[in-house]
Amino acid sequence: MSDAAVSTGRRGRSARRERRTATSGGVGAPYISRGIPNYEVLSDESAATIEANADRILAEIGLEFREDPDVLNIWKIAGAEVDGERVRFPKGMLREILKTAPSQFTQHARNPARNVEIGGNNLVFAPVYGPPFVTDLDQGRRYGTIDDFRNFVKLAYMSPWMHHSGGTVCEPVDLPVNKRHFDMVYSHIKYSDKPFMGSVTAPERAEDSVRMAQITFGEDFVDQNCVMIQLINANSPLVFDATMLGALKVYARNNQACIVSPFILAGAMSPVTVAGTLAQVLAEALAGCALTQLIRPGAPVVFGAFVSSISMQSGAPTFGSPEGSLLLNGAAKLARRAGLPFRSGGSFTASKLPDAQSAQESAQTITATVQGGVNFCLHAAGWLEGGLCSSYEKFILDADQLGMMHVLAKGIDVNDESLAMDALEEVGPGGHFLGAAHTQRNFESAFYRSSVADNNSYEQWLADGELDAAKRANKIWKEQLAAYTGPALDPAIDEALLDFMTERKASFPDSNV
Amino acid sequence: MSDAAVSTGRRGRSARRERRTATSGGVGAPYISRGIPNYEVLSDESAATIEANADRILAEIGLEFREDPDVLNIWKIAGAEVDGERVRFPKGMLREILKTAPSQFTQHARNPARNVEIGGNNLVFAPVYGPPFVTDLDQGRRYGTIDDFRNFVKLAYMSPWMHHSGGTVCEPVDLPVNKRHFDMVYSHIKYSDKPFMGSVTAPERAEDSVRMAQITFGEDFVDQNCVMIQLINANSPLVFDATMLGALKVYARNNQACIVSPFILAGAMSPVTVAGTLAQVLAEALAGCALTQLIRPGAPVVFGAFVSSISMQSGAPTFGSPEGSLLLNGAAKLARRAGLPFRSGGSFTASKLPDAQSAQESAQTITATVQGGVNFCLHAAGWLEGGLCSSYEKFILDADQLGMMHVLAKGIDVNDESLAMDALEEVGPGGHFLGAAHTQRNFESAFYRSSVADNNSYEQWLADGELDAAKRANKIWKEQLAAYTGPALDPAIDEALLDFMTERKASFPDSNV
Repeated sequence: MSDAAVSTGRRGRSARRERRTATSGGVGAPYISRGIPNYEVLSDESAATIEANADRILAEIGLEFREDPDVLNIWKIAGAEVDGERVRFPKGMLREILKTAPSQFTQHARNPARNVEIGGNNLVFAPVYGPPFVTDLDQGRRYGTIDDFRNFVKLAYMSPWMHHSGGTVCEPVDLPVNKRHFDMVYSHIKYSDKPFMGSVTAPERAEDSVRMAQITFGEDFVDQNCVMIQLINANSPLVFDATMLGALKVYARNNQACIVSPFILAGAMSPVTVAGTLAQVLAEALAGCALTQLIRPGAPVVFGAFVSSISMQSGAPTFGSPEGSLLLNGAAKLARRAGLPFRSGGSFTASKLPDAQSAQESAQTITATVQGGVNFCLHAAGWLEGGLCSSYEKFILDADQLGMMHVLAKGIDVNDESLAMDALEEVGPGGHFLGAAHTQRNFESAFYRSSVADNNSYEQWLADGELDAAKRANKIWKEQLAAYTGPALDPAIDEALLDFMTERKASFPDSNV
Repeated sequence: MSDAAVSTGRRGRSARRERRTATSGGVGAPYISRGIPNYEVLSDESAATIEANADRILAEIGLEFREDPDVLNIWKIAGAEVDGERVRFPKGMLREILKTAPSQFTQHARNPARNVEIGGNNLVFAPVYGPPFVTDLDQGRRYGTIDDFRNFVKLAYMSPWMHHSGGTVCEPVDLPVNKRHFDMVYSHIKYSDKPFMGSVTAPERAEDSVRMAQITFGEDFVDQNCVMIQLINANSPLVFDATMLGALKVYARNNQACIVSPFILAGAMSPVTVAGTLAQVLAEALAGCALTQLIRPGAPVVFGAFVSSISMQSGAPTFGSPEGSLLLNGAAKLARRAGLPFRSGGSFTASKLPDAQSAQESAQTITATVQGGVNFCLHAAGWLEGGLCSSYEKFILDADQLGMMHVLAKGIDVNDESLAMDALEEVGPGGHFLGAAHTQRNFESAFYRSSVADNNSYEQWLADGELDAAKRANKIWKEQLAAYTGPALDPAIDEALLDFMTERKASFPDSNV
């Protein structure tokens, strides 16, 4: 995308109008193509040592694949050593299997301009995933509903910095557990035209998600192309459970992408050290990713790592910690060396509100995400409370920061125009550059314009009501939802989706498990 | 320093006691020695292009050295082309002169355990510098006083993550402008034993600062060693004024360190592009740094870069911007290539209060600081409002983040103990690591323990009074000041300093210029 995607240019110039409202989701870059190098904290030698230890974990300790005889059988046929539910892998076996996995793939959106490239030097931002609660400054914290779900889909659609519609942007707790996946998938398709995620909470819900994708994209297209990406968590340490394995099999069989993610709070679910945790992450990710290739060679798969630590005083999970950043950075390098796209990062925080703690922790993680070489970033906006709560204000604050990350990821352009020798000659010692011809030519796209930051004087800020960033964000999300106009959806597809949902919902009773 | 400097270990384990109060300044590392590589956004080729343009700026446009015939004469003798106050430099001249400048030097503290190494892979954190205002949640924003000044010196002394006492931690506006430097320098010597900065607001105030250092350290020691470091700003674009030149000459002559810093808000005081600004920064820094070597070859000097941008809508300065991070990163590389220690970064923000904006902007800049290769970081804690205000709460929040930066800067240890194979073997699939022998051996130093973050459950947080990070920080700084016990100062030195100040203050009338 052009510079225009990064800075929206001149639009009202008074200090009071510093804030910018994204009006429709159309104007952002479809994804980031990094112009900056990957920052690598781990040396090649250290990475090789960790890989050797992962090989030992896989061969000597092994992993458990629980309550899924089918998967155990698949491993046996592939040459693994299967002992009850414990599976051990001869050295090199998994990497050999993974040779069919693509290092980069396209996830198609129903609007082709929104297709994303997952892998290589690309980075895709997707919203928060999974919180049962939602919060905003007006109503406070409560269980999420399908209305909240739709709101977050709309906010993600409208943000020029959000590339993806995500999955469970919050749990719609007002709908039955065994049927809410229909409304979630439908909301992503209906209220956004960005790429999205399918349900993983049961194999039949995964099948329903695939069916809805087929209705939207066509059966043949879905069979040949990735149109959904799914989050398959390992049950760390060293376990995959039947629910996740069931969903993984459905999606891999249908050529849809699985993100195989060790979900680790170091100190509890992995060793209390970064290096030990990385070895475990690598073992778990290699095993889960390889399984997809045994089900359908060439199916898109992503090496995931949800990694943070716990407080060794209270046992509480911590986020945005320096250890979390190091884990992310190291895991990214291990994924690159494995030739797989990498998922990690987000705007993590343990804070209960969009305060300084939340911003500091989120900034640390999102910077590590951009610099470390993440390809798919879930939880890029809206996350509070260690992922228990989706926050409207936090979503706006985070999305603004994602805009800044677009600029950071471009790096430094060095060319005749950016070197600006004409400006330096024109202005000379003691002058100022505001009126220079070079400034006039370049100012519209020059600097990122925050939608939330208040850069005004103290006096102006007082006159504007002494709002903190969270209160400004509160205004913005309401303005955005009020201004939302959805993308068109082919009425025939819409009707077919609704018919399918109605029929399927009627075919089995509601249940909250 | 050992791991113990990075994590304070077990000290009360309940969730309610998550917060840690640093009791005395003694326990931190004296400075950071980075175990992580420098992150380089700028390629060697791009850096060389920018250097060629800086050479052109120096040779063709030149710089102005205003109202200081002595400096113009020094340049003339050195071979520069002097035309009125405009000085042009033949290609290569400045780099030749800079060959005598040390690439790394020690700044001595009155407590030798606090000496800092400036240059190489080291990083020194110093507090906010210069704000006329101070603020806290109780009293709000007001002009700073010498009591506030002492308080910030004490807080910096007590923080295990602050390596330096800094300079003008706030302006003591209750003292006459022409005499407050005595009380500032004295406060640093009396209430802290960390290294500090001298006055630069007039040559005679610089002389007074040197004299006070001589009383503290001895005349010969000061002549042979760096015991003060000073901030010499360029008046960008391409101007040095008489005040700064006067101070630079005093300090260089006395073998004390000058940080020669272009002070640039890009778009106003430099071109509206990162590359153009970097060329200007390099030209200004090379000229100012070289001048110190003409005054005293071998005198310690630091390549500085205070670089941010302005809002092209309102003209207001912006901080923590992505362009600011790129400028910092690029300037760091240019300084390394010039063989000079580098000063930049800090916990910058344009926000008026310690909210999400302030934390996000500060986190972006401090991460760029740590990863980019900064050697001396002024404004590492306490800064609000674009540097107009020193905040007590922000100081605590920032200092906590500096602690996290100590961990980040260490990188990833990979060795038999950190690889934790024994823990993985002991725990196996589905277990947990909390009780593992490896965890017991390592948990005390395992993870950084934030003094401010609340990682507890929502319910616990409610029970604790629903405090945001700023309110928690408010409690901490008050606890810290209440617990302050100063370092001992030799009574003979103390008396000599007070006598000198009394005598000098009586020798000329008060003035507020």
